[in-house]
Amino acid sequence: MDKISINEQFSLLKEEWAPKIIARSNDQSVRILKGTGELGWHKHEDEEKIIMVFKGQLTLKLKESNDITLETGEMYVMPKGVDHCPIAQADTHFMMIEPS
Amino acid sequence: MDKISINEQFSLLKEEWAPKIIARSNDQSVRILKGTGELGWHKHEDEEKIIMVFKGQLTLKLKESNDITLETGEMYVMPKGVDHCPIAQADTHFMMIEPS
Repeated sequence: MDKISINEQFSLLKEEWAPKIIARSNDQSVRILKGTGELGWHKHEDEEKIIMVFKGQLTLKLKESNDITLETGEMYVMPKGVDHCPIAQADTHFMMIEPS
Repeated sequence: MDKISINEQFSLLKEEWAPKIIARSNDQSVRILKGTGELGWHKHEDEEKIIMVFKGQLTLKLKESNDITLETGEMYVMPKGVDHCPIAQADTHFMMIEPS
């Protein structure tokens, strides 16, 4: 495997809310995506997810607790089974690491 | 869980080559560490490891292929069973994600 430039990979993304897998490790996938606006409510019953912001700002609305707002350089682990709705400022870039 | 400021966590590290776990997700640990110089040869027989550089430059010497040099914003997945020796420029900051 070669090394990966994370910013170069972000620059190659063409569509919003279309995750791209840039690496795999121990059955986890490293996905990057960019987005603007609201994605919609959802949850992941059986898995946790690392979310890391590389550009912009991502708010994770949570039904049962205070919202989490991630700035560039901040991360959060979304617990299993928690309803959430991501809302991204214009052209926010973020990474998710979760089971493949 | 609260959100995590990655740079703040790096600023709290006191010792070199002393990883600190800042998060866990799906039985993987997110560790950060800072280092300068050479750590020594080693390998991980049964697990892969994501390595991501946040400051400085980290060279991964490999016995059986060309060295990998990671600059800030670059990542690499170290395969299982590969002998490697990390060499860090002064005060290099990096993250490793691997099984707990």
